[in-house]
Amino acid sequence: MEKMEICPKIEAAMQLLGKRWMGLIIYVLLNGPQRFGQLESCLPISGKLLSERLKELEKWGIVKRQVYPEVPVRVVYELTERGKQMEPIISAIHHWAEHSFSEDDFPVEIKKE
Amino acid sequence: MEKMEICPKIEAAMQLLGKRWMGLIIYVLLNGPQRFGQLESCLPISGKLLSERLKELEKWGIVKRQVYPEVPVRVVYELTERGKQMEPIISAIHHWAEHSFSEDDFPVEIKKE
Repeated sequence: MEKMEICPKIEAAMQLLGKRWMGLIIYVLLNGPQRFGQLESCLPISGKLLSERLKELEKWGIVKRQVYPEVPVRVVYELTERGKQMEPIISAIHHWAEHSFSEDDFPVEIKKE
Repeated sequence: MEKMEICPKIEAAMQLLGKRWMGLIIYVLLNGPQRFGQLESCLPISGKLLSERLKELEKWGIVKRQVYPEVPVRVVYELTERGKQMEPIISAIHHWAEHSFSEDDFPVEIKKE
């Protein structure tokens, strides 16, 4: 089988999703806009790494950061249209995870970074 | 919004796909069984890392390693049934990558590990 050309767009998208916690951050944001603290409390990830991932998702046009000039100021992260279009990916992962394994079949434990 | 419980199965599946190159290895194996050398030549990844990823995919029951006692011995990697069931995930990523970006819209370059 000769060298397979991998479409750069797919490779880039896989690399994005290949970054640890990216999929889970998108999964949580599919439930609606969240403040940083809300994201941090429901994900097994450090604040520093979460903020790095959010910045990258902003760069990709997947997440937008809204600042509300209240006292104290309120900062909310939400999915853009492009981010919402990832919903089929996340539900395909969800479906696969639910249907391809029994409860005691998972070979990996969740490690906190 | 109170603390969101993330289903451990989804979290584990996201972590698996969250490992760099996992998605691409599965993407290539969806084309059929491949020898190690074929995988190595068409993926921008070192042999050492490729072999680590393949071992983990075997542990998850996603890939099986077939040894053919020929001279020289032939070792082929192929997706199991569980691995083939990931096809909807990979095509959802493919569809999103193709339709959510224009050619010059990708903010990331592919780095060889």
